[in-house]
Amino acid sequence: MSCDFLARAVPGVQKLSPYVPGKPVDELARELNLDPAGIVKLASNENPLGPSPKALEAIRAELAELTRYPDGNGFELKQKLAARCGVSVAQVTLGNGSNDILDLVARAWLAPGLNAVFSQYAFAVYPIATQAVGAQGKAVPAKAHGHDLEAMLAAIDGNTRVVFIANPNNPTGTWFGPDALESFLARVPQDVLVVLDEAYIEYAEGDELPDGLDYLVRYPNLIVSRTFSKAYGLASLRVGYALSSPQVADVLNRVRQPFNVNSLALSAACAALDDADYLAESRRVNDAGMAQLEAGFAELGLNWIPSKGNFIAVDFARDAAPINRALLQEGVIVRPVGGYGMPTFLRVSIGTRAENARFLDVLGQVLARG
Amino acid sequence: MSCDFLARAVPGVQKLSPYVPGKPVDELARELNLDPAGIVKLASNENPLGPSPKALEAIRAELAELTRYPDGNGFELKQKLAARCGVSVAQVTLGNGSNDILDLVARAWLAPGLNAVFSQYAFAVYPIATQAVGAQGKAVPAKAHGHDLEAMLAAIDGNTRVVFIANPNNPTGTWFGPDALESFLARVPQDVLVVLDEAYIEYAEGDELPDGLDYLVRYPNLIVSRTFSKAYGLASLRVGYALSSPQVADVLNRVRQPFNVNSLALSAACAALDDADYLAESRRVNDAGMAQLEAGFAELGLNWIPSKGNFIAVDFARDAAPINRALLQEGVIVRPVGGYGMPTFLRVSIGTRAENARFLDVLGQVLARG
Repeated sequence: MSCDFLARAVPGVQKLSPYVPGKPVDELARELNLDPAGIVKLASNENPLGPSPKALEAIRAELAELTRYPDGNGFELKQKLAARCGVSVAQVTLGNGSNDILDLVARAWLAPGLNAVFSQYAFAVYPIATQAVGAQGKAVPAKAHGHDLEAMLAAIDGNTRVVFIANPNNPTGTWFGPDALESFLARVPQDVLVVLDEAYIEYAEGDELPDGLDYLVRYPNLIVSRTFSKAYGLASLRVGYALSSPQVADVLNRVRQPFNVNSLALSAACAALDDADYLAESRRVNDAGMAQLEAGFAELGLNWIPSKGNFIAVDFARDAAPINRALLQEGVIVRPVGGYGMPTFLRVSIGTRAENARFLDVLGQVLARG
Repeated sequence: MSCDFLARAVPGVQKLSPYVPGKPVDELARELNLDPAGIVKLASNENPLGPSPKALEAIRAELAELTRYPDGNGFELKQKLAARCGVSVAQVTLGNGSNDILDLVARAWLAPGLNAVFSQYAFAVYPIATQAVGAQGKAVPAKAHGHDLEAMLAAIDGNTRVVFIANPNNPTGTWFGPDALESFLARVPQDVLVVLDEAYIEYAEGDELPDGLDYLVRYPNLIVSRTFSKAYGLASLRVGYALSSPQVADVLNRVRQPFNVNSLALSAACAALDDADYLAESRRVNDAGMAQLEAGFAELGLNWIPSKGNFIAVDFARDAAPINRALLQEGVIVRPVGGYGMPTFLRVSIGTRAENARFLDVLGQVLARG
């Protein structure tokens, strides 16, 4: 008679449903016996440009040290980030992707009896990280698929320790402006941490969105979370970071695994920060692809949520699951968002011009079939 | 007036002291203005062979996919590990290093009011992972620097959820045999998980140590933890794994971050598993280096703890901190273990023949100075 180790797990973990990632190309190829080379994946908000040559060069230069542990302090990358972001090294925390940052925040400040506030339709890792430590997640109804910051403020209570907000938000692409953020931060209690998730900010910079860094000095309860997985094109390597007050960073670094970021990620991220051309091209390709998809959706008579990310949520005004299945049969992977409570939508990452065209073409055929 | 976010953290985290890693070569070079090329690092139990050519080839082949997320299910690596270890894929959990595995176990089954049992002088991550979730760590006094399994059994109480044992143990290199493990597992309550940490097992296989995999069928409360960081030479990349019952693996995989292992690590680990020559050479160089260091210590009149790992703890019978400082001045990095309660010892990783010789030479000079 063996023990039931699920029932024996801590209560938060017992009820945990893991994150469902975008379907990998190889998995679809195996399932449907398709040629992987013919599959288009627009499911995980990945950068369609292919790797930055500077990042590749940095990785190659690091390969001789493969048997060595990473620098647990991430000295060089933290120096570079601090200089770039105008903060001190003591304000930087490195994560195994920004998922790790979100997890560290939950582990440091949440526990049973406490709660975290986030928006309906916000990134799935907020409720998962909250649930994993047995805390309560308070999902605040969205307004036009975006954050209702006023309602989120009202949802904060004496047991709230963390508010997660994303700008732009994934999977909706919605955003809020500087005035809304300022007004929100000014009214959040000073002992409640605000995690401002800017995973997609590089696609929206200089636009109508605030730069979270501008608020760090005035709001010691602010944590800005960013990633190298999107505009910097390093999703495979797992590297993200948080910028915060030195004290908050100290707490996060206590919980962090000592070698959470691998050596190749550290080197590649340093190089990526210096590759301004790649970043500019990421932005240019994304802007062009967004326009291409919007035009295609308009032609197909579809509605979508205007987005500042590298993805767009398109509304079929009926159950999107059969459409998703039909796309998969044709070797096109996009992201169903039924798990987000958006069963009539699919989220489509912006690809290359050719990938976007292929997707729109297949989508047109699928819709024409009824 | 800003809030004290350390005081506001969950109690376990407030008291957390992070793991202290071996000093990186670059850090020492910066501190003492030394040429990094002249520094010998025998501080982190790293493989002195340099990278496996097969692992390097696998990494290069993966670089084109740098912008893509890793396969969150680690399909290929789990298949290979399952076949190699004679278990099903459902019994494998992948970790961002085996540190991640230890952390996942603590997060899944430990909480305030519960406890984990481990040995005095055991790996520092056991108490850290336990403390981070607010559980109590019960450190059982060692016997001749090794695990006192009888005393550990006696330490298990109604609130014990996990026992961490390491074979061989780090930082002492001590080990126990098959009879001791069998007798221990047969008497651990079935609802208490036993994590058998075999990070160094590849250096000791076929020797007097049991193979943890042989016990998985009979003990559903057993978790065998292993790593690619040591004998497989992939410390920089962060990849470890756990083998357990499918149910235990299911729980660990719920807590695991969806992309905890990066793509290059997944590919390199697959290749490393197939590189039998590299593994054999790792073992051969380690055996030779161990003999070299033992002979050198004997010549210097020093005692040491016999070790089955890729490191050896040498006893200076006086405070080893000044000796460590003198070694650093000469560009030789080894590991102080005062934090483990072994202030008269230094732990020395087995290096190449030349590295070991350089270390012994410098040590001889340092000791001759008094």
